[in-house]
Amino acid sequence: MNFASDNGGPAHQQIIAALTSANEGFAPSYGAEDAMTELRAQMGDIFEAPEAAIYLVATGTAANALALATLAQPWQTIYCTPLAHINCDECQAPEFYTCGSKLTLVGADDKMTPEALDHAIAGAGHGNVHVAQPGPVSLTQVTEMGRLYSLEELGALSGVAAAHGLPVHLDGARFANALVALGCSPAEMTWKAGIDAVSFGGTKNGCIGVEAVIFFNPEKAWEFELRRKRAAHLFSKHRFLSAQMLAYLADDLWLTSARAANARAARLAQGLGTLPDCHFLAEPQANMIFATLPRATHQRLKEAGARYHLNGGPLETGPEDEPLPMRLVCDWSIDEAEIDRFIDIAKG
Amino acid sequence: MNFASDNGGPAHQQIIAALTSANEGFAPSYGAEDAMTELRAQMGDIFEAPEAAIYLVATGTAANALALATLAQPWQTIYCTPLAHINCDECQAPEFYTCGSKLTLVGADDKMTPEALDHAIAGAGHGNVHVAQPGPVSLTQVTEMGRLYSLEELGALSGVAAAHGLPVHLDGARFANALVALGCSPAEMTWKAGIDAVSFGGTKNGCIGVEAVIFFNPEKAWEFELRRKRAAHLFSKHRFLSAQMLAYLADDLWLTSARAANARAARLAQGLGTLPDCHFLAEPQANMIFATLPRATHQRLKEAGARYHLNGGPLETGPEDEPLPMRLVCDWSIDEAEIDRFIDIAKG
Amino acid sequence: MNFASDNGGPAHQQIIAALTSANEGFAPSYGAEDAMTELRAQMGDIFEAPEAAIYLVATGTAANALALATLAQPWQTIYCTPLAHINCDECQAPEFYTCGSKLTLVGADDKMTPEALDHAIAGAGHGNVHVAQPGPVSLTQVTEMGRLYSLEELGALSGVAAAHGLPVHLDGARFANALVALGCSPAEMTWKAGIDAVSFGGTKNGCIGVEAVIFFNPEKAWEFELRRKRAAHLFSKHRFLSAQMLAYLADDLWLTSARAANARAARLAQGLGTLPDCHFLAEPQANMIFATLPRATHQRLKEAGARYHLNGGPLETGPEDEPLPMRLVCDWSIDEAEIDRFIDIAKG
Amino acid sequence: MNFASDNGGPAHQQIIAALTSANEGFAPSYGAEDAMTELRAQMGDIFEAPEAAIYLVATGTAANALALATLAQPWQTIYCTPLAHINCDECQAPEFYTCGSKLTLVGADDKMTPEALDHAIAGAGHGNVHVAQPGPVSLTQVTEMGRLYSLEELGALSGVAAAHGLPVHLDGARFANALVALGCSPAEMTWKAGIDAVSFGGTKNGCIGVEAVIFFNPEKAWEFELRRKRAAHLFSKHRFLSAQMLAYLADDLWLTSARAANARAARLAQGLGTLPDCHFLAEPQANMIFATLPRATHQRLKEAGARYHLNGGPLETGPEDEPLPMRLVCDWSIDEAEIDRFIDIAKG
Repeated sequence: MNFASDNGGPAHQQIIAALTSANEGFAPSYGAEDAMTELRAQMGDIFEAPEAAIYLVATGTAANALALATLAQPWQTIYCTPLAHINCDECQAPEFYTCGSKLTLVGADDKMTPEALDHAIAGAGHGNVHVAQPGPVSLTQVTEMGRLYSLEELGALSGVAAAHGLPVHLDGARFANALVALGCSPAEMTWKAGIDAVSFGGTKNGCIGVEAVIFFNPEKAWEFELRRKRAAHLFSKHRFLSAQMLAYLADDLWLTSARAANARAARLAQGLGTLPDCHFLAEPQANMIFATLPRATHQRLKEAGARYHLNGGPLETGPEDEPLPMRLVCDWSIDEAEIDRFIDIAKG
Repeated sequence: MNFASDNGGPAHQQIIAALTSANEGFAPSYGAEDAMTELRAQMGDIFEAPEAAIYLVATGTAANALALATLAQPWQTIYCTPLAHINCDECQAPEFYTCGSKLTLVGADDKMTPEALDHAIAGAGHGNVHVAQPGPVSLTQVTEMGRLYSLEELGALSGVAAAHGLPVHLDGARFANALVALGCSPAEMTWKAGIDAVSFGGTKNGCIGVEAVIFFNPEKAWEFELRRKRAAHLFSKHRFLSAQMLAYLADDLWLTSARAANARAARLAQGLGTLPDCHFLAEPQANMIFATLPRATHQRLKEAGARYHLNGGPLETGPEDEPLPMRLVCDWSIDEAEIDRFIDIAKG
Repeated sequence: MNFASDNGGPAHQQIIAALTSANEGFAPSYGAEDAMTELRAQMGDIFEAPEAAIYLVATGTAANALALATLAQPWQTIYCTPLAHINCDECQAPEFYTCGSKLTLVGADDKMTPEALDHAIAGAGHGNVHVAQPGPVSLTQVTEMGRLYSLEELGALSGVAAAHGLPVHLDGARFANALVALGCSPAEMTWKAGIDAVSFGGTKNGCIGVEAVIFFNPEKAWEFELRRKRAAHLFSKHRFLSAQMLAYLADDLWLTSARAANARAARLAQGLGTLPDCHFLAEPQANMIFATLPRATHQRLKEAGARYHLNGGPLETGPEDEPLPMRLVCDWSIDEAEIDRFIDIAKG
Repeated sequence: MNFASDNGGPAHQQIIAALTSANEGFAPSYGAEDAMTELRAQMGDIFEAPEAAIYLVATGTAANALALATLAQPWQTIYCTPLAHINCDECQAPEFYTCGSKLTLVGADDKMTPEALDHAIAGAGHGNVHVAQPGPVSLTQVTEMGRLYSLEELGALSGVAAAHGLPVHLDGARFANALVALGCSPAEMTWKAGIDAVSFGGTKNGCIGVEAVIFFNPEKAWEFELRRKRAAHLFSKHRFLSAQMLAYLADDLWLTSARAANARAARLAQGLGTLPDCHFLAEPQANMIFATLPRATHQRLKEAGARYHLNGGPLETGPEDEPLPMRLVCDWSIDEAEIDRFIDIAKG
C-alpha cells in the first residue's frame, strides 16, 4: 500500500532490459550514440515537430532549471503558481541556474487563470529598470494537486504570455498522465497550445532516471547544450539515457504505464468516494489524489503499513474525527488489490 | 581497437545485474534507501573513515564542481594544473557552481610541484581585498597525462596547502586505476596524505554513471546536500546509484577492473615501446598513454578502424614521418587481441 | 512643489562643503584615510557599539544587497514584506548578490507581524533538502508606506527570528526619519531591539550618495569587505564618502534634517486632513504620505506644476470625483510655502 | 613626493565646483537629469559616435565588470593579459558579474600580440561543448606597465577578434593619458580601431569618482541598464555623476590634466635616466614608470617620505646595491618641485 510518490516504485522491466541491450561494446559518448539520433527522429514524429531540439537529462529538476535558464534572463521574473515544483521542491534550482531570476507567484494554489497571469505581467515593471522584468511563464501539467489544464486553458494562458512577448515552459514531469487523461496528441498539448519548451518526464512513469527537454524552436539549442554541460548534466555514457527513453516510447509503454497509473488512481478515488467522511481537496484527474480523512482513519491506515504523505498532523493526538489532509499517488506498478485493501482498511 | 576513452566501453555485467536486483518493489527515494546506508558503512570501512560524509552523483563533473563549491568561497581562487579536467573539460562548471571562483593554474602540464604550489599561493593576495583570495587545491589522480602522484608527492602538496590553511580536493575520476598502480590503501592515498575531499569515480571504470563525493570531515555535509539538490543532482530513484556503487565495490570489482585496464595499457605501452618511431610524452603509469607516432602510422591505424584521440594534425596531409601526438586509453573491457592487432598494424 | 522623492532634492550645503575640505592634497585610498577611522569611532559612539564593523557604499541598494549577501546563503530565503524595496525596487539585486536566494513575502503590505513571520519561517522547510532554507529577516524602517515599527514591534520580530536562529537586517534608507519620529536612541532602534545589520541611509536625507553598512557582530567583516570589492563598490577615492558621512553626523545634521523633513510632512498631512475628500491610506509617521485625492484635484495640482507619484490613473479621463492614490515625500529642503501652496491648490 | 597612485591625489577644483553648481534645487533622479542628456550629446560629438549608448558609474571596476558582463556569456572566456586590472585587482568582479566566465591570459605581461591572441582563441574549444567558449577580448590602454598600444596594434588585435566574431572591450581607466600620448582622436583610439565598448575613466584623472561606459553599438543598451541597476550601480542622485563628467570634459580639462600628468612622468623619467643604477622595466609612455633602483636608494627615498609601490623587498635588509623594482605614478596635481626633489634624493 505505497502511495507515497511515483518515484518510489520500480522501473518497468522493458526499461531495465533496454539498459542491458544498450550495454554492447563501445559507443560514442556524450550523446553522439546512434540511439540518440533515432530518439530525436522518434520524438520529432511523436510531437509532429521535426525541427525541435531534444535533449536528455537525468532529473526533473535539471530539466526544469536548465529549460528555464535558457528561456529567462537573470533580471527577469518567472511566472508560476505558489505550489509549483519549481517554487516548492527544487531548493532554488531555478534561481541558481538563472543566476538570480525571481519567481512571481500567480494564483493561490496549483493552477493559474489567464486573468491572473495577465494581471501579474501587466503589474510588473516592463521597461522600468528598477523592477524585475517579465520573463517566461512556467505551467505544470499534471499540476501539483493532480489536476489538469484543458487545452483551452493552456491556449488561453499561452496567449496571454504571447501577447506580452513571453515564452511558455511546461513542466511535464507527469506529461504522459496528463496526455492520456486529456486524450489529445502531444502536439496539441504543447506547441499547438502555444508551449515553447517542455520538460518531458520519464522518471515518474517507469524509467530509472531520464527526462527530455524539448525546444520547439531550436534557436537556443546550442545555448542549452552549453548550459547542460556547465551544469554537469551531460552524461558521458549517454547511451544509458537514450536507451531508457527509447524503451519508454517503444510500443507506447509511456502511454500504457500512464493509463495504468491513472486507472489505479481512479479506482482509489472511487473507493474513497464511498467513504462518508472523505472529502476531496481537488478533483483527481490523473494519478494523484488530495483528500482528507479523519485522524482515526489515518491511524488505522498507517498502522496497517500504508505509505503516503499526511500533510496535517500530528497523527497521534487530537480529535479522532478531525479531518487531516493527505496526498495519494498511484504509480503504474501499484496493485489493484493494494488499492482495495486500502479502501477496506479506511472503511474500518 | 577502441582507445578513445574509458567512457566509451560497456558497463560491467555485475553493474547491470545490480540494477535489475535493485528494481524490486518500492523503495524510499532521494538516498533514503537501505542500500545507501549499507554503502556508507562499506565505504567508511574501505577508507578507514567511519565519520566521513559520503554522497553519490551521476557525473564526474558534478562530483568535482559540487565538492569544490562546498570547499571554496566565491572570492577565492582554486589551484589546479593547466591540464586539469576542471580547467579544460567542464565548460566552466567550477566557476558556475562556485558563483565566480577563479582557477589559478600551477605548473605547466598535468602535475604540480610543492614549490610551484607554494609560490602560487604565496603570490596571491591573502588579506588583500583587491585580489582573489587563496582557496582549495585540486589535484588529479590519475593525472590527465596518465601519470601518478606518489604518496610522498601528495603529502608534500597537501602539506603546502595546510601550511596556508587551504583544503585539498582530489579529482579521482580514475581513483581505482591510481590505487592499484600505487599499491596503497584508499586511506593512504587520501586522508592520510592530507586530502580533505575526494571525487571517487565509478563511471570510467565499468559503471553506468555514478561517482561518490567523500568529505573526511563531515562538517560541511549538510551544505553539500543543499548544493547537490539545488544543482538538480539529487536523484529521486537514488537506489539505482547506490546499487551501482555497491556492485562496484562488491568482490573488489573496482580493483579488478582497474587492474585489468592498467594491465592492458601496460601491454599496449610495451608494444609501442618496440616501435622505433614511437616516443612517449609521459610515462604511462595507469591506463592512459600519451605518445607520438609518425603520420603514416596514424593513417594506417585509422584506416584499419582504430579509434583514439589524435591531438595534432591534419592527418591527411604532411610529411609521412612527422610525429603526431595521440592519447590512448584502455578501459577494463578492451581485448588483448585488439591491443596486439593495434601494435601489428602500427608496425606496418 | 516637488514631492516626488527624497532623492530629487539638493544635498545639504554642509555636505558639499565637506567635499571641498576633504579635497586637500594626497590621501590614502580605498578607505584607509584618517577620516574613516574617525568615522568608525563616531559611529561606534552613536550606536553605543564600539565593536561594530562599519562600511560605506554609495547607494542604498548596494548597502542592502551586500548586507543580505553577507548574512544569507544562496540556498536560503530572505523574509521581507511584499512592498519592501528589496522586493520591488532593486531589479533583483538581492538575488544577484546572494547568487540565487529567494525572497519570501510576509504580510500583505509594508509591515509584517511577528505572527506572520513565525508562520512563514515555521512553514519553510528547515532541514528539508528540497526546500529553500530559512534565512535572514529584512525589515524596513521607515516602511515603504511611511509607517514605523515601534521598538516593541522590532523587538518582537527580532525575537521570532532569533527563536529560529536567523539574523535580522534593517533597511534604514530613512533611518534618521524613523529615529527622530520614535524619539529613541540608535542603539535602541537597532541592536538593543535585536537587529544584527543595518543599512544606514544618508543619500535620502541630504547627502550626495553615501550609506553605511553596520554589523554589530564584526565576525563577517572581512567577508563583507571582499563582497564589496568584488561587487565594485569599494571606492578608490573613498575620502569623499567618509567626508560626506562625517559631515552628515556633525552637529546632528542628520537629525536636524530628518526632523525638518518629518515636520514638513506633518504640515502637509495636517493640511490634507482638512480636505473633505482626502483619505489617508496609511498613517503618516515620518516624511511620506500615502493618500487619495479626487481626479479633479490631481488635475489641478499637476497643472500647477506639483510633482509627485500618482499611483492610479489615468489622470486625464474618468470621473472627476474618483479617488486616485498618490505618494507625497517631503525632503529636508522643501519650503513650507510650497506645502501651503499645494494645499491651497488642492482646496480649489 | 607621492607617487603611489593617481587615485590618491585631489580632485580638480573644477570638478568640485561643478558639484556645487549641480546642487541647485530639485532634479530628476536616476540619470533623467538634463545634464545627462547634455553629456550624451557632448560625448557623442567627442567620439564622433552619435548613436553610442553612454552610461555613468562611480568606479572603474564597475565600468569594466558591467561592460564585460554585457558582452560575455557565462560559458565564455574573456581574453586579457596576466597583468590586466580585471585579472589582478578586481577581486574577481568580472567572474561575479558574468556569473562564472573565465579569464584566459594571453601574453606574459601587460600587452598581448595579435599572434598570441589568435593562438589563444584558435586553441579554445569553439563549438566544443566541454570547453569554455571564446568570448570578448579586453585590452587596457594605458597598460598596467605604463605602456601604450599604438593604433596599429589596437587595429590588429581588434582584427583578430573580429575574425573570430568576438567583441573588444577597452579598459580606459587612463584613457586620456593614452590619448594625449598617442596624439590621436577618441574615435581613432576606439571604434575606428575596432573597439566595441570602452571604460572611459575619470576618477584617476582629477574626478571624485566617475567613469563612463560607452557602447558604440547601442544594441545592448537596455541590457546594460538592467545590469547596472541590478548591481546597485545606478545612482539616485545621478546628477552628481553627470556634473563631474561634464566638468571633466569642459574646456578640455580631461586632456589638460592628462598632459600634465604625462609631462610630470616624463620629467621624472628623464631624471631617473640620469641615475647610473636605475633600470627601466618598461618604456614609460604615459604617467607611470616601472623601474629598479638599488635598495640603498629606496631606503633614502622612503626615509625622506617618498610614497610609491615597492614591488620587491624586503627594503630593510639585503645588499645595498640589489636592484628592487618600483612603480611610480604621476597624477595631474603633482608638483614639479616634488619630482626634482625625488631625483635629488635618489642621486644621494
